[in-house]
Amino acid sequence: MYINISEALKAIETLHQKNTELRSPVRLYQPRNYIMSMPGKKMRSLLCLMGYGLYKEDYVDCLDLAYVVELFHNFTLVHDDIMDEATLRRGLPAVHIKYDQSSAILSGDLMLIEAYDRLCQLPLDKPMEYLNLFNIMGREVCEGQSLDMEFETRDDVTIEEYLKMIELKTAVLLGLSLRIGAKYAGASPTDERHLYHFGVNAGIGFQLQDDLLDIYGDPEKFGKKSGGDIIQGKKSYLYLRAMSLLSDDAKEDFRNIYAQSNIDPDEKIMEVKQIYDELHVLHYCQEAKQAYFDLAVSHINAVSAPQVHKDSLVEFSKSLLHRES
Amino acid sequence: MYINISEALKAIETLHQKNTELRSPVRLYQPRNYIMSMPGKKMRSLLCLMGYGLYKEDYVDCLDLAYVVELFHNFTLVHDDIMDEATLRRGLPAVHIKYDQSSAILSGDLMLIEAYDRLCQLPLDKPMEYLNLFNIMGREVCEGQSLDMEFETRDDVTIEEYLKMIELKTAVLLGLSLRIGAKYAGASPTDERHLYHFGVNAGIGFQLQDDLLDIYGDPEKFGKKSGGDIIQGKKSYLYLRAMSLLSDDAKEDFRNIYAQSNIDPDEKIMEVKQIYDELHVLHYCQEAKQAYFDLAVSHINAVSAPQVHKDSLVEFSKSLLHRES
Repeated sequence: MYINISEALKAIETLHQKNTELRSPVRLYQPRNYIMSMPGKKMRSLLCLMGYGLYKEDYVDCLDLAYVVELFHNFTLVHDDIMDEATLRRGLPAVHIKYDQSSAILSGDLMLIEAYDRLCQLPLDKPMEYLNLFNIMGREVCEGQSLDMEFETRDDVTIEEYLKMIELKTAVLLGLSLRIGAKYAGASPTDERHLYHFGVNAGIGFQLQDDLLDIYGDPEKFGKKSGGDIIQGKKSYLYLRAMSLLSDDAKEDFRNIYAQSNIDPDEKIMEVKQIYDELHVLHYCQEAKQAYFDLAVSHINAVSAPQVHKDSLVEFSKSLLHRES
Repeated sequence: MYINISEALKAIETLHQKNTELRSPVRLYQPRNYIMSMPGKKMRSLLCLMGYGLYKEDYVDCLDLAYVVELFHNFTLVHDDIMDEATLRRGLPAVHIKYDQSSAILSGDLMLIEAYDRLCQLPLDKPMEYLNLFNIMGREVCEGQSLDMEFETRDDVTIEEYLKMIELKTAVLLGLSLRIGAKYAGASPTDERHLYHFGVNAGIGFQLQDDLLDIYGDPEKFGKKSGGDIIQGKKSYLYLRAMSLLSDDAKEDFRNIYAQSNIDPDEKIMEVKQIYDELHVLHYCQEAKQAYFDLAVSHINAVSAPQVHKDSLVEFSKSLLHRES
């Protein structure tokens, strides 16, 4: 592989440690350091480095740019956890639990500003191009989170709307990460665009895998309790696909089952899973995932970078799309 | 006056109306439009236009830049109101009350990103200079809000710390607004710096006036109930100055009076005001305000713009510093 993932991860983590000196006011910077020090896949940083590595040898020069996308991502995590009332993040207390809600709001704000600040400090050729991409992405991620919340209270969400939501909430940042890494290494505008679409489509596939792992994954490997989406009544791809396959009467029944909260969780999971199985929604979900992956690959094929590097990037994405954790 | 304030205000408000077409998702953009449509002093926008007007005739060209600082300011209001658990903003329900907390967090995030986005869209000469100023200001405003929250639970806040806090939380944005308006009109780097310091120092004076109006203002003109800071036990300039003038024993007594919450509000206000009066803290506060104003004026004197325009800017600032509402 053109980039040794475990080496790159180590380099990212070393930079994260370097960037957590405790500034004053402590109440502002401590929550920031807390979440930035959490273990994680660092997928966005890795994609940024891999975009760079398609064209240039030494990805060390791209680490500071990779840090910017990680900062942005963590800003969204801190605020999303408040909005979603999530108490855990990567197995540890969420920022607003570990500290308090006000600190979490403010530290999130700071991280967003810091992401802009660090981006502006980099020796960028045509910095406004990066900023414009970043601004559009930022707005889209907010729109995605807004739709996600809106869907919680809506009964008529379509699969198309759901796919648009995960594109905005998750996939555009993955696409941007890969794109600006490549841009930083001097990729052509055409390559940039194809890499962006590769990242976005692979990102949608990645999110579909997440939906699928919730109930079809091995909970020991996945690290979360099985069926969390079902217990919460989350309108996942699996749920929406099942709904689309049912007759109007059966739809009503299934909606009621899925919305129940005063029922034994294991029983609810079993009931829902049985319907999923009868309707083969796992199969449909895998088919959709594959379609997005194929679309992603068609974009990478159009990129003017060494074939071996492109193959490695596809392999890396495949491993994310078939991940069990 | 070189800028007709009421005309400029009208132009700002017209732009605000133009910029509130309702985009989708509604849940994201409606809270943004709600707060951006509230009546207000538009002080930051006005300062931006006045900075521009020192050098160039037609401030209409600067309106879009003025909108950027207003957007940033309103982002901080939306998030601060959540953190401070404020239910009212300019006499209307705060965003997190009118809508819900999650929408307020997310719309605030969006407004911050939109501020960057709009700044990047302007035909700026040397855009990175604007961005760097904006990034530093953004970080400082977060630090100011963090200190403000920290002070709530601290008993040893000094006057110097308090002044630093209001500088960061309020004054740096006023300074930046004036500065980038002037920059947009082609001010020299020296003029820019002096105008920034004029804005910051006048801004500190402005905040001291706010502290003073809380108890020495005419509640009918001020639009808030008298003594709000005292009832909340807020460590205002008046409180900290009083503390600095008291003996150790008297300090302890006064701290206890000020911290009381199970007491008739009017009685608490009366008791505190009596101590303020005995110690002449109103006098000290006015003295401090005047010192900051004099410092501001010394900076404006060093600016190479027509004297009549500078005089008008000083007059405008004076009216803010002596305002009764």
